[in-house]
Amino acid sequence: MTNNNFTGNVWLQMLGRDEQSLNTGVGNVTFEPGARTKWHLHPAGQIILVTEGVGYYQEKGQPKKILYKGDVIKCPANVEHWHGASKDSYFVQIAVTDNKNGSVVWLHPVTEEEYHK
Amino acid sequence: MTNNNFTGNVWLQMLGRDEQSLNTGVGNVTFEPGARTKWHLHPAGQIILVTEGVGYYQEKGQPKKILYKGDVIKCPANVEHWHGASKDSYFVQIAVTDNKNGSVVWLHPVTEEEYHK
Repeated sequence: MTNNNFTGNVWLQMLGRDEQSLNTGVGNVTFEPGARTKWHLHPAGQIILVTEGVGYYQEKGQPKKILYKGDVIKCPANVEHWHGASKDSYFVQIAVTDNKNGSVVWLHPVTEEEYHK
Repeated sequence: MTNNNFTGNVWLQMLGRDEQSLNTGVGNVTFEPGARTKWHLHPAGQIILVTEGVGYYQEKGQPKKILYKGDVIKCPANVEHWHGASKDSYFVQIAVTDNKNGSVVWLHPVTEEEYHK
């Protein structure tokens, strides 16, 4: 997947067809080392299940967290955040999103300074 | 977990604390061989991600499906169904449920005849 909501290479596989039939979307996302989302928010929140690799997660105004396989993150509704791979490792996550009021609002890129901080 | 919504031994681990903060619940469920849910339905549907073992899934009036690691099932809203382990294998699944209008309505047990059919 190449689009301007991400920095670096990211692969997205939606799990299950006919995603509109339920309010809940589930997608498997793979980030190459250094790849990450833009800053964004979810109007009804998101749950991230870490399945492989080492990643980063940061909410606005909070320190960056390091994520490992088995970690579970709940992004509260409407809280700005970003996530992605660490600089030296691939990162694979399952994202569970409530789509009722729109699933995501994309904001600005994560700068190199923010990413490495 | 021992309660009368299941037949056999089942282990449930909710993923993440404070499940009420989002509308979406995520739980990891392990069924021993032969263990299964009662017939039930979800007012807003459910997504099942199979992570280990061999299981069964059946919607009312449909044939039983055999589930393997990597399979994804979408239970449509308000469709009666059951799921659980096959008779010879453990079965592990991640259940993703929209909890807005209540997460589950429990019905009657799956009989031995229904289970083995």
